[in-house]
Amino acid sequence: MQHDPVLPPGATLITPTAPIRIAAHGARAKCLQRLIRLGLPVPRTVALDAATVAMLAEGGTIDTRAVLAAFGPDTLVSIRPSSGQHEWGGPASVLNAGMNDARHAVLSGRIGADKALRLHARFIRSYAMVVAGVDCGGADDIPAMLAAFEAAHGRPFPQDPAVQLADVLRGMAAAWNAPTARLLRAARGAPDDAALGLVVQQMVLGVGDPALGEDGAGVIQFVDGETGRPRIVGRYLSQSQGRDALQGQGALYLTSDPRGPALQDVYPQVFMDLQHYGTLCRTRLREEMQIEFTLQDGALYVLDAVGVQRSTRAALRIAVTLATDGIIPEAEAVSRVQPRALLNVLHRRIRPGAGGAEIGRGIAASPGAATGALVLTAADAHAAGARGEACILVRSETVPEDVLGMHAAAGILTVRGGVSSHAAVIARGLGLPCVVGAAGLSLDAGQGLMVASDGRVLHSGQTVTLDGHGGRVIAGAVPLVEPMLDDAFATLLSWADEVRDIGVRANCDTPSEAQTAARFGAEGIGLCRTEHMFFEPDRLAVMREMIFAEDPQDRARALARLLPVQRADFTELFAIMAGRPVCIRLLDPPLHEFLPSDADGIAAMAAALHIAPDAARRRAAALAEANPMLGMRGVRLGIAIPEIYDMQARAIFEAAAAQGDVVPEVMIPLVSARREVDLVAARIAAVARSVRDEMGVPLEYRLGVMVETPRAALRADEIAEAASFLSFGTNDLTQMTYGLSRDDAGRFLSSYVAQGVFADDPFLRLDMDGVGELLRIGAERGRRARPDVTLSICGEHGGDPDSIDFSRAAGFDYVSCSPFRVPVARLAAAHLAIRDRGGSLTAPPER
Amino acid sequence: MQHDPVLPPGATLITPTAPIRIAAHGARAKCLQRLIRLGLPVPRTVALDAATVAMLAEGGTIDTRAVLAAFGPDTLVSIRPSSGQHEWGGPASVLNAGMNDARHAVLSGRIGADKALRLHARFIRSYAMVVAGVDCGGADDIPAMLAAFEAAHGRPFPQDPAVQLADVLRGMAAAWNAPTARLLRAARGAPDDAALGLVVQQMVLGVGDPALGEDGAGVIQFVDGETGRPRIVGRYLSQSQGRDALQGQGALYLTSDPRGPALQDVYPQVFMDLQHYGTLCRTRLREEMQIEFTLQDGALYVLDAVGVQRSTRAALRIAVTLATDGIIPEAEAVSRVQPRALLNVLHRRIRPGAGGAEIGRGIAASPGAATGALVLTAADAHAAGARGEACILVRSETVPEDVLGMHAAAGILTVRGGVSSHAAVIARGLGLPCVVGAAGLSLDAGQGLMVASDGRVLHSGQTVTLDGHGGRVIAGAVPLVEPMLDDAFATLLSWADEVRDIGVRANCDTPSEAQTAARFGAEGIGLCRTEHMFFEPDRLAVMREMIFAEDPQDRARALARLLPVQRADFTELFAIMAGRPVCIRLLDPPLHEFLPSDADGIAAMAAALHIAPDAARRRAAALAEANPMLGMRGVRLGIAIPEIYDMQARAIFEAAAAQGDVVPEVMIPLVSARREVDLVAARIAAVARSVRDEMGVPLEYRLGVMVETPRAALRADEIAEAASFLSFGTNDLTQMTYGLSRDDAGRFLSSYVAQGVFADDPFLRLDMDGVGELLRIGAERGRRARPDVTLSICGEHGGDPDSIDFSRAAGFDYVSCSPFRVPVARLAAAHLAIRDRGGSLTAPPER
Repeated sequence: MQHDPVLPPGATLITPTAPIRIAAHGARAKCLQRLIRLGLPVPRTVALDAATVAMLAEGGTIDTRAVLAAFGPDTLVSIRPSSGQHEWGGPASVLNAGMNDARHAVLSGRIGADKALRLHARFIRSYAMVVAGVDCGGADDIPAMLAAFEAAHGRPFPQDPAVQLADVLRGMAAAWNAPTARLLRAARGAPDDAALGLVVQQMVLGVGDPALGEDGAGVIQFVDGETGRPRIVGRYLSQSQGRDALQGQGALYLTSDPRGPALQDVYPQVFMDLQHYGTLCRTRLREEMQIEFTLQDGALYVLDAVGVQRSTRAALRIAVTLATDGIIPEAEAVSRVQPRALLNVLHRRIRPGAGGAEIGRGIAASPGAATGALVLTAADAHAAGARGEACILVRSETVPEDVLGMHAAAGILTVRGGVSSHAAVIARGLGLPCVVGAAGLSLDAGQGLMVASDGRVLHSGQTVTLDGHGGRVIAGAVPLVEPMLDDAFATLLSWADEVRDIGVRANCDTPSEAQTAARFGAEGIGLCRTEHMFFEPDRLAVMREMIFAEDPQDRARALARLLPVQRADFTELFAIMAGRPVCIRLLDPPLHEFLPSDADGIAAMAAALHIAPDAARRRAAALAEANPMLGMRGVRLGIAIPEIYDMQARAIFEAAAAQGDVVPEVMIPLVSARREVDLVAARIAAVARSVRDEMGVPLEYRLGVMVETPRAALRADEIAEAASFLSFGTNDLTQMTYGLSRDDAGRFLSSYVAQGVFADDPFLRLDMDGVGELLRIGAERGRRARPDVTLSICGEHGGDPDSIDFSRAAGFDYVSCSPFRVPVARLAAAHLAIRDRGGSLTAPPER
Repeated sequence: MQHDPVLPPGATLITPTAPIRIAAHGARAKCLQRLIRLGLPVPRTVALDAATVAMLAEGGTIDTRAVLAAFGPDTLVSIRPSSGQHEWGGPASVLNAGMNDARHAVLSGRIGADKALRLHARFIRSYAMVVAGVDCGGADDIPAMLAAFEAAHGRPFPQDPAVQLADVLRGMAAAWNAPTARLLRAARGAPDDAALGLVVQQMVLGVGDPALGEDGAGVIQFVDGETGRPRIVGRYLSQSQGRDALQGQGALYLTSDPRGPALQDVYPQVFMDLQHYGTLCRTRLREEMQIEFTLQDGALYVLDAVGVQRSTRAALRIAVTLATDGIIPEAEAVSRVQPRALLNVLHRRIRPGAGGAEIGRGIAASPGAATGALVLTAADAHAAGARGEACILVRSETVPEDVLGMHAAAGILTVRGGVSSHAAVIARGLGLPCVVGAAGLSLDAGQGLMVASDGRVLHSGQTVTLDGHGGRVIAGAVPLVEPMLDDAFATLLSWADEVRDIGVRANCDTPSEAQTAARFGAEGIGLCRTEHMFFEPDRLAVMREMIFAEDPQDRARALARLLPVQRADFTELFAIMAGRPVCIRLLDPPLHEFLPSDADGIAAMAAALHIAPDAARRRAAALAEANPMLGMRGVRLGIAIPEIYDMQARAIFEAAAAQGDVVPEVMIPLVSARREVDLVAARIAAVARSVRDEMGVPLEYRLGVMVETPRAALRADEIAEAASFLSFGTNDLTQMTYGLSRDDAGRFLSSYVAQGVFADDPFLRLDMDGVGELLRIGAERGRRARPDVTLSICGEHGGDPDSIDFSRAAGFDYVSCSPFRVPVARLAAAHLAIRDRGGSLTAPPER
């Protein structure tokens, strides 16, 4: 019936051998060609390339009469977007183009007036929207619709199919360039210069004379988009077009179903053909596809096929199954799952569409979702935890004193702070959902209430839900979806570990974090912050005795009481990590962080310690600092009061010597000069000698430095001479490189990022240009001075794929991140290794 | 009488041609050789080189009999130290070595028993002290002295002159190595490996038989050591040795004097000879020397000559006079005055030996001395200033609110803080004496009293004196010495400017500082911190209105009221600097610094601003920061509230346009990213355009960046593309590079420096290795991106000679420092330029 037409430049009839390329024609055009090659019954389709579409958007024209000629006379066509990736979206498809009064009349005769009217009205409605943004209403009243269009648009609805097609093509091209469309696809990962191709396809009507055979349209896929497990999903609707079956009443189930009739039973051959097509797609296109099909006069057509929409959990299982079925290599399965997407399966989520009244909004600082009673103090959180009740801890901002309460909470909400605030960092470490900087809320802890952004007052104890993915605070409880760590997850991560070439450790301060880290496959602990160990109430009291010690003897007595509890901490960590390396940072924070910050707290402390309230107040005041971040902390404290580090070293060594199979790593914080390392190293060596002598066992340890000051990075050569490892603390290094406190930055950082002053929040995404430069300098100098020095990154950035990329390039041995980030880091590292081996991350299906 | 002896190795008879070198034999030996070459009557002298003396100190021996043989039989000798520089000191000289019972008897016959006894006793006393540390008492009772020596030392006093000499040489060699001696000379600038030579000189007794001619000894110099002006100073004492004349009763004046007989009149020929010798020294040794001379049997001998001890003021005049007399080149005169010593003439000092009860001691943070009434609040200081009364402001530590009070004070004392604390920096800028970190003091501002370290209580209003050189606090008033900036000072500095090759500007915030800077020869203002301008009470109120503005209109109104006062500030500065460049830093501190820090202050402010106390409290709390140093300040404020910089730019431009001959430099603080500069630059350009249009005059300005964050240094290339100058603020850069707040560092920095953890206080002396590395990187990258970019250092380090050395090497165009440091910087820069031209800083006198 049809013969090969002469198409205008930029338009190509899709045949098995036509030069169709994703870059030029888009993913849909390419996919249709692949389906054609596989022998699937795809209606005749013409692809318009992106250059042509761009030209149309700028007012150019194309010979649409020639395009229509490719389909033969009187053929209706559909027009669909074909961008570089299906996920980027695009303008809505237009069906039944070519309909006009004359064809309406002809079709009425052939398929019946009702159906012809529906097709015609559908086209007018789509045309009016895409060409003129005019809504022609829902009633299928052609004269009224045409009048409405003309009234709104100022010119009559065109009857000439060529004019119709030209208008639709131009309208869709223009829609692609609309600002909201750009924003939308940028949010889905499209580059700024993403281009649009279009495909013009001969309509298979899906409606017709039942006497000639079954007509209708449906959608089918062979896996469950939520679980990734095999399941036939879809609907079929007789006398319908496109995806009507998914909404329409009276649609058939696909497989035999007690609830109603099924395609499988009514049209078994069609069902078998579709199954065959699905298998072809899976094995030859190497992907689980959703197929859009239409029956016309009883014949089956495949109009389109796109990758099945899937949750991260499903994506994991689909990739693993394709690989275990031998369809794709394991490395490609690894490549197909986005590292950051793993966070979606590692945490609870609010069930999509669950609703609930939003009473506040902030920055999503740690993923997950939790429901619990509102509590306004760490003590209340602790009490709730002790009663086994879930609670959401809400604070203006958190301080180290709150850590224990945070451990007991199900979620953390702060009014101030940014993604790198204390609350956010701790919450990510604990794997707790966290929202920070919810500036619309105001708290009155004295009254025990929180005023929401809409003025509603919530009292302590009322139930709220925190959405750590969306940054939302919701009144009451809403349904949550549990995380699922199934066999597919474990399999994929084990494949990732086989290809990855940089270590991944976890930052863990507590046994429960260490257990999480071990479960998530961390190769060791890269950063154990010992200060959190001192905030347990009984220890805090001894710590305060130590701080208020009148003389070295008093101090020694207090430290002697801390020794066994510290040793027990390390014993437990070493046991959990079972021989894997554990890097312990010696005490870092300024001493005033261990004291209460308010007058009442100081009075209570004075009473507990049996010291005069005035003396307590004076000492607390004397310890106060203008800029604690830049004050008497880290190694400065270790040098001023060396007994603290002595005690910690002894606790580490005694625990390690008892365990036997561990080589503990002792890390000195906040170093800025080589001599600081020498002084601490000498005392620690002395402690090690005496533990060896006392316990009569061999004891090895490694001593290293946390590089957090720009100076330590610049002087990494001489520091490495005295340190067997250098671990770069990118949090503090970022603070000092920018001169920016993460606690205070929340106030302006988001507006800074929004204005493009900083491309990204440097606490969230490693600043490659500035901080990264210091990391490169430090790594290069450290390595030069000591070729076998172990280099690592242990800041919040450690788990970020970009940072891992950076770390591999800069020659780091491992990254260390929050336990919940470990799988993300393992997978990201694998992606990078695959990329560098020349393996493509999105291995193309069959050409 | 004597013939050339055979001396042991390491001993050299000083003759005009003997190979005497300062490095080997010390300065005294070399000077004696020079005197001999000039024909001065120097007694026979043997020099022992430093290697030999070191050998003796380690228990070696030398053939002292051979040494003594050089002087002929029965000659007594003196032994004097000869270190590399006279100023380094050394063991006391020993006279009359060789005295024993036999010679005592012979001398008794020749010069009389009394005199022989005095010589003998003098020797025993010196010997006992230097050899055994034994004090043989004051009475000239030889048997008793010898018995005392033997009892204390366990062996008899040696009679053999060779043994005596060996013992004395060994004792003096050992004394050089005693720890206290090492410390003492290190304090005088000697290197760790400074060596000691010794000279053994034939005694000219100075006591004898009057019948044979006059005997005696004296000292003469030809300039005043305090003023440097010509004046014959010294004494002569008949029948005396060494410097006895300076202490002894009955000494002659040198020149005719109404108070008593004078050498000039009694022995005119001797006086004329000495004058001749002085002139020879001055013209041929090119130095003002103090001559030690002795008469024996009427004949004049010159035993020794050393450079005249001199104050800085005298050193200046002596150098200038030698140069104007054509004896030394001007550049050498410049070289001869130590830059840091200039501080001694730029400030008042406590009169040496003035006494006074010391009631506290701290770190000498800004030189000078002041007496005034004790005040404990900035307000009291301000009130005292308004009454024209001198006051000493004492604070726990100062905050920006105190600045106005500091301006009114005569001196600043703080209990906390280090040399780079707020108090110290401001005081140096103001040229006020300042003592910080006087931890022994405690204050009770409420009671209006200060408790001294000895428990004594001083009330507000009592008089105290502050010693900014010595770090002392003294009760009551003590006599002060006024600074003198005379013609010699001006001449020397003008010569320094001729050779210097790096610019020197001053950091000035106020007209009075600018006047000081201009007076001290600053080439411009390198840093004008505008925030200090807002602490005047009337302006502070408007500033607070601006901070509490409810909407942009309110804020604009407050800023409109600040505009004329800012403009007036700049108008005055531009007028004082008379066309020299003025670099103005836009507002830098966080807004909370403009608010009261205590509840009462906030309440008062709320009342003054007619706002609710609660609202004021909330706003103040909302502005509070955990680490203000790393918070919402500098350009971050400028971007968040751009109207502030707009107002400042307008004030600058209107003042400049009115003045006509000034190209103001506008500097953006705390930059960490290029885009910050672009955003501010665009707005400032708009302000400039509108000022040009409104005033109808041409207006040029330069826009630059203050490089204070490590990131700005690392990204100096891209920042320089947008900035015509980069001024490195080494204070903040040091804080961020070390992760060290200068306000909090005082607590441990001194112990850190004492323990050698840091070689120096990095706020006092630029850290070449770390901060310096960032300066080098920043300068290199900035210059690469923009070859004509102006580079400078404007931190506290700007005036430090080491920093200037560094800045020249790194290619900086100028340094900027406190006004009082400007002369130091000018002179230091000249020294460096002379050094690099190959001119020696200590040009040797005639060989």
